[in-house]
Amino acid sequence: MTRVLLATRNAKKLRELRRILDAEGVSGIELDGLADVEEFDETPETAATFEENALAKARDAAAATGLPSIADDSGISVDALNGMPGVLSARWAGRHGDDQANLELVLAQTADVPDERRGAAFVCAAALVVPDGQEQVVRGEWRGELTRKASGTNGFGYDPIFRPEGETRTSAELDPAEKDESSHRGRALRLLLPYLREL
Amino acid sequence: MTRVLLATRNAKKLRELRRILDAEGVSGIELDGLADVEEFDETPETAATFEENALAKARDAAAATGLPSIADDSGISVDALNGMPGVLSARWAGRHGDDQANLELVLAQTADVPDERRGAAFVCAAALVVPDGQEQVVRGEWRGELTRKASGTNGFGYDPIFRPEGETRTSAELDPAEKDESSHRGRALRLLLPYLREL
Repeated sequence: MTRVLLATRNAKKLRELRRILDAEGVSGIELDGLADVEEFDETPETAATFEENALAKARDAAAATGLPSIADDSGISVDALNGMPGVLSARWAGRHGDDQANLELVLAQTADVPDERRGAAFVCAAALVVPDGQEQVVRGEWRGELTRKASGTNGFGYDPIFRPEGETRTSAELDPAEKDESSHRGRALRLLLPYLREL
Repeated sequence: MTRVLLATRNAKKLRELRRILDAEGVSGIELDGLADVEEFDETPETAATFEENALAKARDAAAATGLPSIADDSGISVDALNGMPGVLSARWAGRHGDDQANLELVLAQTADVPDERRGAAFVCAAALVVPDGQEQVVRGEWRGELTRKASGTNGFGYDPIFRPEGETRTSAELDPAEKDESSHRGRALRLLLPYLREL
C-alpha cells in the first residue's frame, strides 16, 4: 500500500476522493486526511488563482509529512460577478466556511440578474506533489447556472444554488455518485489518476 | 435658464454636480433632482455595465419629464475581486444602499489580499439624454487602492476605504472640492460639460 495524503480536513472531500479511486479501480493506495497525520502549519489560501493555492497546499503538505500529497482549491465562478467568488468562495460573506451565509449573499447579489445572465461554473484545481519528485496541477470545470433559491441537502458549499448544465436538479439534489461523474472535483481528481497509478 | 434634470435622489450627487458647474463657469442651467419633478417609475439598475445603466436611467427620465436629463451609474472596481463590486456596488452586501455593510464586506473579502494586489478604481458612467435630441455617454475613472480599514467621513459609498493614487488620505478624508477635481464622477461630469453648454 502506498500512503497518500489528501491535504484537507473536510471529511466529505476525503470520502469523495475515496469513492472516485474505488470507482476507477485504483488500488494499492491508502488515502489519509490531515486528521491522520501530525499537525503542521497549513498554507493559507491567499493566492490569486485556484492553481497556485492547490500547489502551495500540496507542496507544504508533502514537505511536512514526506508523503505524496494531493490538495485542491475549489470554488464557484459566477459570470455576473466577473468570475467571483472564485478563490474567495469559502469566505465570500466575510467569515471562513459559513456555507449558508456565502450562498445567501450570492443569491442576494444576483437577485436582479436576469435568467439569461445567470451562468456559473464550479472550478477545481487539484495538485499532486511527490516529495523529491513530480508536481502536477490539473483543473476541472462544471458549467451550469445559478438558481434563485437554495434546494437540496447533499454536498456542501454552493451546491444548493448550482444547477449543472442539462440538469433540472441542483448539485445538492444529485446523489454523491452522480455528482462524482460530472463534478469539477471529480473531473480534476480523475485527471490525477494516471499519476497516482504510477506511485 | 435651461432646466436640466439630474436623475438622482442622492442630495450629495446633486450638490456635487452643482459645484462642478459653478467651478467650470457653466451658467444658465437650473439643475433639479428627482425630488423636484413629478414622480415616475424609475429604471432599475440591472444592466451588466455602468454605461447601460446610466443611459437607461437618463432616457427614462427624459421621456417622463421632457427635460434634458443626466444620469450616472458609479461604483468601485476592485482588482482582487475581478472588477467587482462594479455595477453591484450599491447592493454588494445584499441590501440596497447600506454603505457601511458594503464596505465592511469588501474589507472582509480582501482581508488576506496582500498590499501589492489591493488596486481598485472608482468608475462613473454619466449619460445625457435630450428629448428628441442627442444622447451622450461618458466614463470617468479614478485609480487607487483599498485601505485595510475605513477612515474619513466625507463622501459616501466606498470613499472611506479608497486611497486615490498619489494620496495618503482616503477619498472620504479629502474635502469636497479636492475630490471633485480628480474623482471619477467629477471627470465624467466634466466630459459632459461641452454638451451642457450647447443646451
